[in-house]
Amino acid sequence: MFMHNKRLQYTVRVSSTDPGLANLMLEQFGGPQGELAAAMRYFTQALAEEDPGRKDMLLDIATEELSHLEVIGTIVAMLNKGAKGKLAEIVDEQADMYRSITGAGNDSHITQVLYGGGPPLTNSAGYPWTAAYIDSIGDPTADLRSNIAAEARAKIVYDRLINLTPDPGVREALGFLMTREVAHQKSFEKALYAIQPNFPPGKGMPMPQFADKYFDMSQGDGNASGPWNSGEQWEVVSDRTAQAAVDGGDGLPTTHLSAEEKKVVTQLAARTKSATNMNPVTGADLGAGPGAGKTTVQNPNVPRK
Amino acid sequence: MFMHNKRLQYTVRVSSTDPGLANLMLEQFGGPQGELAAAMRYFTQALAEEDPGRKDMLLDIATEELSHLEVIGTIVAMLNKGAKGKLAEIVDEQADMYRSITGAGNDSHITQVLYGGGPPLTNSAGYPWTAAYIDSIGDPTADLRSNIAAEARAKIVYDRLINLTPDPGVREALGFLMTREVAHQKSFEKALYAIQPNFPPGKGMPMPQFADKYFDMSQGDGNASGPWNSGEQWEVVSDRTAQAAVDGGDGLPTTHLSAEEKKVVTQLAARTKSATNMNPVTGADLGAGPGAGKTTVQNPNVPRK
Amino acid sequence: MFMHNKRLQYTVRVSSTDPGLANLMLEQFGGPQGELAAAMRYFTQALAEEDPGRKDMLLDIATEELSHLEVIGTIVAMLNKGAKGKLAEIVDEQADMYRSITGAGNDSHITQVLYGGGPPLTNSAGYPWTAAYIDSIGDPTADLRSNIAAEARAKIVYDRLINLTPDPGVREALGFLMTREVAHQKSFEKALYAIQPNFPPGKGMPMPQFADKYFDMSQGDGNASGPWNSGEQWEVVSDRTAQAAVDGGDGLPTTHLSAEEKKVVTQLAARTKSATNMNPVTGADLGAGPGAGKTTVQNPNVPRK
Amino acid sequence: MFMHNKRLQYTVRVSSTDPGLANLMLEQFGGPQGELAAAMRYFTQALAEEDPGRKDMLLDIATEELSHLEVIGTIVAMLNKGAKGKLAEIVDEQADMYRSITGAGNDSHITQVLYGGGPPLTNSAGYPWTAAYIDSIGDPTADLRSNIAAEARAKIVYDRLINLTPDPGVREALGFLMTREVAHQKSFEKALYAIQPNFPPGKGMPMPQFADKYFDMSQGDGNASGPWNSGEQWEVVSDRTAQAAVDGGDGLPTTHLSAEEKKVVTQLAARTKSATNMNPVTGADLGAGPGAGKTTVQNPNVPRK
Amino acid sequence: MFMHNKRLQYTVRVSSTDPGLANLMLEQFGGPQGELAAAMRYFTQALAEEDPGRKDMLLDIATEELSHLEVIGTIVAMLNKGAKGKLAEIVDEQADMYRSITGAGNDSHITQVLYGGGPPLTNSAGYPWTAAYIDSIGDPTADLRSNIAAEARAKIVYDRLINLTPDPGVREALGFLMTREVAHQKSFEKALYAIQPNFPPGKGMPMPQFADKYFDMSQGDGNASGPWNSGEQWEVVSDRTAQAAVDGGDGLPTTHLSAEEKKVVTQLAARTKSATNMNPVTGADLGAGPGAGKTTVQNPNVPRK
Amino acid sequence: MFMHNKRLQYTVRVSSTDPGLANLMLEQFGGPQGELAAAMRYFTQALAEEDPGRKDMLLDIATEELSHLEVIGTIVAMLNKGAKGKLAEIVDEQADMYRSITGAGNDSHITQVLYGGGPPLTNSAGYPWTAAYIDSIGDPTADLRSNIAAEARAKIVYDRLINLTPDPGVREALGFLMTREVAHQKSFEKALYAIQPNFPPGKGMPMPQFADKYFDMSQGDGNASGPWNSGEQWEVVSDRTAQAAVDGGDGLPTTHLSAEEKKVVTQLAARTKSATNMNPVTGADLGAGPGAGKTTVQNPNVPRK
Repeated sequence: MFMHNKRLQYTVRVSSTDPGLANLMLEQFGGPQGELAAAMRYFTQALAEEDPGRKDMLLDIATEELSHLEVIGTIVAMLNKGAKGKLAEIVDEQADMYRSITGAGNDSHITQVLYGGGPPLTNSAGYPWTAAYIDSIGDPTADLRSNIAAEARAKIVYDRLINLTPDPGVREALGFLMTREVAHQKSFEKALYAIQPNFPPGKGMPMPQFADKYFDMSQGDGNASGPWNSGEQWEVVSDRTAQAAVDGGDGLPTTHLSAEEKKVVTQLAARTKSATNMNPVTGADLGAGPGAGKTTVQNPNVPRK
Repeated sequence: MFMHNKRLQYTVRVSSTDPGLANLMLEQFGGPQGELAAAMRYFTQALAEEDPGRKDMLLDIATEELSHLEVIGTIVAMLNKGAKGKLAEIVDEQADMYRSITGAGNDSHITQVLYGGGPPLTNSAGYPWTAAYIDSIGDPTADLRSNIAAEARAKIVYDRLINLTPDPGVREALGFLMTREVAHQKSFEKALYAIQPNFPPGKGMPMPQFADKYFDMSQGDGNASGPWNSGEQWEVVSDRTAQAAVDGGDGLPTTHLSAEEKKVVTQLAARTKSATNMNPVTGADLGAGPGAGKTTVQNPNVPRK
Repeated sequence: MFMHNKRLQYTVRVSSTDPGLANLMLEQFGGPQGELAAAMRYFTQALAEEDPGRKDMLLDIATEELSHLEVIGTIVAMLNKGAKGKLAEIVDEQADMYRSITGAGNDSHITQVLYGGGPPLTNSAGYPWTAAYIDSIGDPTADLRSNIAAEARAKIVYDRLINLTPDPGVREALGFLMTREVAHQKSFEKALYAIQPNFPPGKGMPMPQFADKYFDMSQGDGNASGPWNSGEQWEVVSDRTAQAAVDGGDGLPTTHLSAEEKKVVTQLAARTKSATNMNPVTGADLGAGPGAGKTTVQNPNVPRK
Repeated sequence: MFMHNKRLQYTVRVSSTDPGLANLMLEQFGGPQGELAAAMRYFTQALAEEDPGRKDMLLDIATEELSHLEVIGTIVAMLNKGAKGKLAEIVDEQADMYRSITGAGNDSHITQVLYGGGPPLTNSAGYPWTAAYIDSIGDPTADLRSNIAAEARAKIVYDRLINLTPDPGVREALGFLMTREVAHQKSFEKALYAIQPNFPPGKGMPMPQFADKYFDMSQGDGNASGPWNSGEQWEVVSDRTAQAAVDGGDGLPTTHLSAEEKKVVTQLAARTKSATNMNPVTGADLGAGPGAGKTTVQNPNVPRK
Repeated sequence: MFMHNKRLQYTVRVSSTDPGLANLMLEQFGGPQGELAAAMRYFTQALAEEDPGRKDMLLDIATEELSHLEVIGTIVAMLNKGAKGKLAEIVDEQADMYRSITGAGNDSHITQVLYGGGPPLTNSAGYPWTAAYIDSIGDPTADLRSNIAAEARAKIVYDRLINLTPDPGVREALGFLMTREVAHQKSFEKALYAIQPNFPPGKGMPMPQFADKYFDMSQGDGNASGPWNSGEQWEVVSDRTAQAAVDGGDGLPTTHLSAEEKKVVTQLAARTKSATNMNPVTGADLGAGPGAGKTTVQNPNVPRK
Repeated sequence: MFMHNKRLQYTVRVSSTDPGLANLMLEQFGGPQGELAAAMRYFTQALAEEDPGRKDMLLDIATEELSHLEVIGTIVAMLNKGAKGKLAEIVDEQADMYRSITGAGNDSHITQVLYGGGPPLTNSAGYPWTAAYIDSIGDPTADLRSNIAAEARAKIVYDRLINLTPDPGVREALGFLMTREVAHQKSFEKALYAIQPNFPPGKGMPMPQFADKYFDMSQGDGNASGPWNSGEQWEVVSDRTAQAAVDGGDGLPTTHLSAEEKKVVTQLAARTKSATNMNPVTGADLGAGPGAGKTTVQNPNVPRK
């Protein structure tokens, strides 16, 4: 059961309102690396977790992330407070209001016109939060790695927001939120390595003949080596022929069709067969007009080589 | 530049067509943990990568994932081949066709009716692939962790598909694809640890006073400890008061409003003020009908305690 | 700040596992009328609310909805618990596993294969939750009406789930959740009518000449009247001519173009002008083949009139 | 059957073209509170409605909303007319064109570059309209409340657009559209209360022991009371213990597992058990580098407390 | 302005209710190739069209498509009519209701539980309609081609629905709708070729040196030729070297950086440089456990080659 | 199998970095008419194609489009290179960084803050790429038309980008990409007309009585004729009565209900019947306050007629 206390986890002190800055903050409210994504990622994992220790940890951190959602949302609300008032109370001339709503040069217009200055669950481009951001799949050795990565990403986005925010009170609160992502990453790391073994993830085991090969699929200037493809652990396959049909087959797909299926597939192929030895007049030919070679006239805006 | 060879990276051998099984395979074609997500995650990272070694590795693996997309999509196409023929050639009675299209008990109906038996870029529920699945953010210490996690998740989903597929040829190809996710995870791990230091991710540094605290936000039966919250590295904060306003402030948000802003916000608050000392008649009161206490009649389907 | 207690708000007692039933329950976990939508609708409103009474109410109810999210998610997890185990531990033959995963006849296959038996934030069709479900716009007389409607919808969906659930423990917990939607609707109604006046919503006032008209746009058999279009409050406009250009103008749009704009628009119109006095040969003509009137051959599956 | 007359329902007179203003207008064309959402909400309800009076009303209003979609879309087209011409006819220098396309400071760039100056079915942030906006669920006492709320929201968004539009002709047409939302709200209200009783919505009845309780989930400074939680109709539950497990149980979930299920769940738990009495070296430890306590170095951009 | 008549464009006669069949019909109601997509594609094009003839045609056909939306939606409503009643009136035992709701083997469960038996604007997998389906871009020679293609696709989906529908009345109405797609395609073809020239679309002209080349990017068994790459109009480029950097450059990207930019990019590269000559211990190494070579153990479910 | 060569298909030469211009380029990277959509449209078609010639062509062009995705993505990366460095290395004052991030006046803020200056798979408004853009349906005569239209659209969007790009190197590369769309359109045209007949698409045949009718649904000033509705091939139906119920029926829907269905539907209709002969007090009446006629007060911002 969740409970709520009116005090924020971190006191929010905004120096002056600024809908444009508010818009950028939305990234961590309703954006992919934001606090709702974090809270819901851990909360949904917790519900199905069998291990009591991990379940407790996931609930602890999910609950804290909800409190962070409140902190960042409160920052947005404070930054928008003046705009919200002006919009609702119809105090400006229309032309002034238009300038003020489009003046930030980002997507704060949607926060104002559509959401009335409240904090919407969108990212800074106005894209609504989607659970497609949540990558929990119900295996702890995969999910903990996803959580580690998610905390790393959130930390970086907070870094960026801190570095573009002139307001010291907002920067301080963002600093707290960023720091907690680091702490959470550490917890998830500990939880991952408290499962032994945890690699490869899950119970199924790889096929030994393919587990240590490195296929050098991109070649040419810039081909490089590093610990990810060199050393005794790796066998590099660079030959293009050896990269294909690595099972030793012919690389062509087959399926067994019943007699009836074979008949209809053959019929379908015959009906839609392309005549390869003709040069049909096409719609494009009809549309190109009388001037032959018309398609090769030069666009004056494209510089000639 | 990309090039293509008609031979698959792994030969696909399907024993018999089965649109229902094809539908489940879509999870790794157009699903969140599937091969398009993998290919595009690494490809977009490669384009902006400054480090030549990582750039080469990302292009190698992105290209291999495209080849895997081709393998899994070919499996889907082979499993659907019979259904595609029957649907296009109109050979069955309508009632038979209806039964065959809805018979699998999953979402293969959409692959057939909407996509004509081809492999669509959807997951097994028919949800179209979205780039919201891609979590690249342009910092290598975060992105490599995301890649590690993504490979772990893909590996698990392949495990599940293998374990529900009776067809030995399909199982074998899935085994190859699963194995390669393990190999890729190993490469990304090497690449992450070839950056030193890589933790915390990014350049910004945490606030020391909050980096080692563990907030015990979920309490009661089941409270647990483990390496994620115990040991000398952690300071656990369990007291509910100490969890709030950890900056030492009052936990209440403030913002500075200009005189004009203050005026309109006050006006807005007055205009929309709620009268708290009255009990207004509401629409629900109007709608509840003459029988007082009507809302408390018991639903016969809800068992009484 | 949010806190969590390990005890659920309502004890969940599941009689036997059933992934198919679990799938239907997702409607109230990650569906449009579900508990996350409710919690986030009220929480985002609370953050920007100026009225202290409404702010407190919104936080109370948002927090309770999070607790309901936990109850319904726990029901899903309990119903999926067996499937989760079998899937992870690879205990069945593949053919048995395939049958068990597709046997429910709904979308439980995605919960199992993609989400590993955990409760995902999707609806019962596997569609990920989206903040597009949240209709908060930052005006209390509109938002409270949205909340009233949302509670009414959620109540109905719970009714439906109760009426298709044979498990008495699940039915009882659903009954609790449904009842709370009714209680919340009552609270929001009280809050709406505690604002006087609350209609029309917002500060802008309608144009009197159009506020009481009812345009009878759909005519023919079935034209009806009721309090929504009859009585002294309404003026019905049935005449088709009087329905158009109600401002008394000509109903045609105009805009002022600068001389330069006029020139380019004219040029554009001339360049893409359609020749109306010719009968051009088209791609369809080319494609219809030598048999004239080919397009009128009858589909044998379409009954002749 | 739908028919169309070339005259608009309200004459559109635009004083001068302005792609930036056009972009904001999209909110009511392809946005969540816009005219397509309104038309489709009522139209889909009408199709399944059993009551002849409501069915007629829903079709009347749906059809009018389609006519409003035409009015607002025409406003967008007129405002974009000059930009459309310049873009198609390639009349400006590239640098001028770039400035003109990005100059509005909002998302008009997408309307121009992607949609060629036509009115796309997106909101003002370029987010495509989605049927996820439509909350019809097929029960009239819920759907009419949803319609009432939707009209209230649309009215508010029109207020905002009116108040930021300097062009008198556009403002007048917006005033008409806003007024009609008020009129429609009145019709839907009448239709709701013409069903008696209409509360609680639907046929299922609440559990009496929970219908009048108010759970005070958010506590601390700012706790308030009002008609939504005070008065004889309400019983407030503030005690944290009494808020949990309100059914009188222990608040812990249970499910019955078959013997086989029990075995695999136990096996899963054992396999993924976390070792709680160790302090494993983690990836973060490896990545933190030789400097101990490295994570606590201060970010120079985060002010010290 | 739109008007409505209560008579359908085509009389709908359903022989017996069937929610499973209704679910498949949704493909043409709220699916990508369905009637809403058609209506909105043409309607939005019409609003910005400068040519009076095309504008009239687009409005004619858009309006007819809305009437078709009504026909197909009415079919869905009729097929769901019984299910809607049972669901709302709570007449069945829960176990019977559960079986009836999941019995169709497709996604009719969502139409029933979430949408109450009404016709939702989703496809047959429950995916809500999105304006991302609409590909209008504001150039008539492109848009008419898009319309031609859209009609062709819709025609095919109707073919499929006809061929799986046993109900003669439904099949007849579907036959009408399918036929009209053919008629509309013919109109759009005439309108396209009434613009001369219409190829290449738009005003910009291609670069002559690249307009007639065919790059043979996919090679190996199955390489083929046809009118799309053979004949005097085409120059086939098969040599892999000649396919790259076709401008004659080195194929490597360059950009000019300011001195300051150069400095920070260099700094970034140095900070995140990967050490290529080491073999770091990784998280996967830590997690693989004491058994060396652990990753190469065989999954018993993956057949050995 | 896909392979990769480090050389681009076209050398990218950027004169100076510009995140604002980069943002517009995203339209062809992750936008609906962009290169990923093209590549995936043809690739998915190829996988299920039975005709060896078309299969080869689809793979050739899909592979080339992947190479174009690389070119346009590289342009974005080069244009963002400076911003990426500054953001990661924290070199600017916060206020400077804020100005630089919001200065472009478009959505480049999201590319920078969320994606770190890398090329995300979004359009220029930050909307993530979705497979809903792909309209392949598995019939070659429909899919080839879709491909033709898609190439036409992509060509137009490139025209627009060329015409707003001052950088000559970028313009040249865009000119190459645009030219290739023209070449691909020509190939797809040839492939379509190499199938004879190809119209109407698919195997089902239209109903002759409806195939040549043109329903004049939009009437009034502006009614026009052209080859799409005039000439001997067309029969125009303008009479409103003749447009409805064209099958000769009454235009009203019917369905057969079982006795039990009839009973519950009747019961549902009775329970939710609207009382049409009363004028109920509504929530809006309660909310309109004591001032009668309140709804007709004039909004001062809406000019009086």
